[in-house]
Amino acid sequence: MDDEYFMKLALNLAGSAVGQTSPNPPVGALVVKDGEILGMGAHMKAGEAHAEVHALWMAGDRAHGADIYVTLEPCSHHGKTPPCADLIVEKGIRRAVIAVMDPNEKVAGRGIEKLRAAGVDVELGLLAEEATNVNRAFFHYTQTGMPYVTLKTATSLDGKTATKTGDSKWITDEAARTDVHRYRHAHDAILVGVNTVLADNPRLTARLPKGAKNPLRIILDSNLRTPLEANVVSDRQAKTWIITGEQVSDAAISPYEELGVTVIPLPATDPDTVLRYLGRQRIMSLFVEGGSAVNWSFIGSGQINQLVQYMAPKLIGGKDAPGVAGGEGFDSMKDVLPIRITSTEMIGEAIKIIAEPQEVDADVYRNC
Amino acid sequence: MDDEYFMKLALNLAGSAVGQTSPNPPVGALVVKDGEILGMGAHMKAGEAHAEVHALWMAGDRAHGADIYVTLEPCSHHGKTPPCADLIVEKGIRRAVIAVMDPNEKVAGRGIEKLRAAGVDVELGLLAEEATNVNRAFFHYTQTGMPYVTLKTATSLDGKTATKTGDSKWITDEAARTDVHRYRHAHDAILVGVNTVLADNPRLTARLPKGAKNPLRIILDSNLRTPLEANVVSDRQAKTWIITGEQVSDAAISPYEELGVTVIPLPATDPDTVLRYLGRQRIMSLFVEGGSAVNWSFIGSGQINQLVQYMAPKLIGGKDAPGVAGGEGFDSMKDVLPIRITSTEMIGEAIKIIAEPQEVDADVYRNC
Repeated sequence: MDDEYFMKLALNLAGSAVGQTSPNPPVGALVVKDGEILGMGAHMKAGEAHAEVHALWMAGDRAHGADIYVTLEPCSHHGKTPPCADLIVEKGIRRAVIAVMDPNEKVAGRGIEKLRAAGVDVELGLLAEEATNVNRAFFHYTQTGMPYVTLKTATSLDGKTATKTGDSKWITDEAARTDVHRYRHAHDAILVGVNTVLADNPRLTARLPKGAKNPLRIILDSNLRTPLEANVVSDRQAKTWIITGEQVSDAAISPYEELGVTVIPLPATDPDTVLRYLGRQRIMSLFVEGGSAVNWSFIGSGQINQLVQYMAPKLIGGKDAPGVAGGEGFDSMKDVLPIRITSTEMIGEAIKIIAEPQEVDADVYRNC
Repeated sequence: MDDEYFMKLALNLAGSAVGQTSPNPPVGALVVKDGEILGMGAHMKAGEAHAEVHALWMAGDRAHGADIYVTLEPCSHHGKTPPCADLIVEKGIRRAVIAVMDPNEKVAGRGIEKLRAAGVDVELGLLAEEATNVNRAFFHYTQTGMPYVTLKTATSLDGKTATKTGDSKWITDEAARTDVHRYRHAHDAILVGVNTVLADNPRLTARLPKGAKNPLRIILDSNLRTPLEANVVSDRQAKTWIITGEQVSDAAISPYEELGVTVIPLPATDPDTVLRYLGRQRIMSLFVEGGSAVNWSFIGSGQINQLVQYMAPKLIGGKDAPGVAGGEGFDSMKDVLPIRITSTEMIGEAIKIIAEPQEVDADVYRNC
């Protein structure tokens, strides 16, 4: 057993809660003495106990003289719960191993200071990259005030999302679709364009065998063309927001509101404005599921943080068959959006590729 | 040491000669006694000694009572060299372990019969799948009379081969381009459409640090629009054939012929006709490097045996930016070409995907 072993366990605990802690970060903690785990915990839901609290409660009096491993700097301020740094000191913890600092301005090093001032031996930076990764939505949101955007696409191997006649059922198999539902569960909100609603009438819910959390559904619909009988309007399975143009009349909006849908007049075609608005509504993570016009508006404006692409073993062809990103496209190779492939794996028969833009703003947290 | 270990070595020997034995298959052989390798060899070039001959010569008199491992059934007929089966018997080999039968109608089991009739203990089928893979171009060619077609594409992650303005330099990095040159070396011929010649003026040669074999260059050009000053016409680095329409006049053709280029009037837009013609010219393997119209004609007619796709970490976008396969495309999901992904790996910054159509005709050899 070594520090890395225990921090990995703590990261697994944090990872298991990704998507259910918003707008708080997922955090995991472990209390260990002489190689024996005395307590473990993760933050499960905003407003409830933090990871350190769960782990320290589980350890009880045995925590005295023990080490704590925590994936994010313990908080130092009174929020909905008392400061974890105080509890760590109070329980007599000897040493705190912390993966990354909390960029939240209410913490930002103060938790560590508090621990050190009380004589706790603090080590910062173990598995910082992995911890940054688990917290990437939270870090991005904290730094920019905008949700972390994951763009998901499902294509044939030649990059088509449908045939020229619009047939897209199904490009990917059951295994890939289940994986997509896990992402829906893990995101605060899901976003599509009205053309996707008109073409496919999707439900945009997270449907998994053992249950899942439905994300908020957001439709970009400048001219309010979403049918009142569309699943996202009428099924009441999850909240729906329609972002529409500022010229749309109140009379047009009210039937949607009567069905419980929130209609928000905004410049719907500008991702930056939309993302700033969503950030103010405390949407920390956004899952964009196309189609081709919406995808291009996010890619063209550089407003994506992660790309998740499923490529099915099929060849569709056709110059008029839609691709991942339609619209204008970039003019020349020097303008295109450079990304970095972070993983590839097989999901059922499809290749799943995860990539991110080459400038990763979360990098700043790695060396703090 | 076991049979599988030695057969793998023999397969490596065969694999190293892929691309330089055409129209013969690549073959490797090992002579082993009491776990000691006495001789090894591969067939290097049509008209020269077969793998078994090299291995038996190396073993010399010690071959008496030894085992031979060979990746393909030894030949039984007098071709440019005497039958290997006879030499194996003559050298006193006790046991022959053979991966796969030779589908060539002049052999097709007769080599094995000859060995058995002479009292050699024959075992057939060890690592047959791997051996079929090494020999797949030869097997396909032998069975169909047409070259084995590998379609190569280089795209952005969103499936584009250029921006809407036609800018494609460079989608992939040096590492991927070097890998492509290895494929050029390993193929009898390379094929592009005239639009690619007009847009990029490629050389279509195999350029590698330690030298490489240039493939025959084939241009599909129905209206003979290839410029006389194009690299493929004027550089004399490799043979070039231009497949043009049957209506093109002799007067139009003669300046090309004066430059050493062969102009062949054929229905250039029909892959089946083109492939049958190339097969009759003993072209065993064809490397198709697009562009989008040519790719579609091969995909749309189902005339590909393997797909090699390099996907670079870039997003290009644009509904008018060209993709892998243009043209009409398939109408509905039930018509699309189903393929099977056989490998994915990172080459430099790009993902390299190898896939093949789901019906693999070489399967018939696996259980013979």
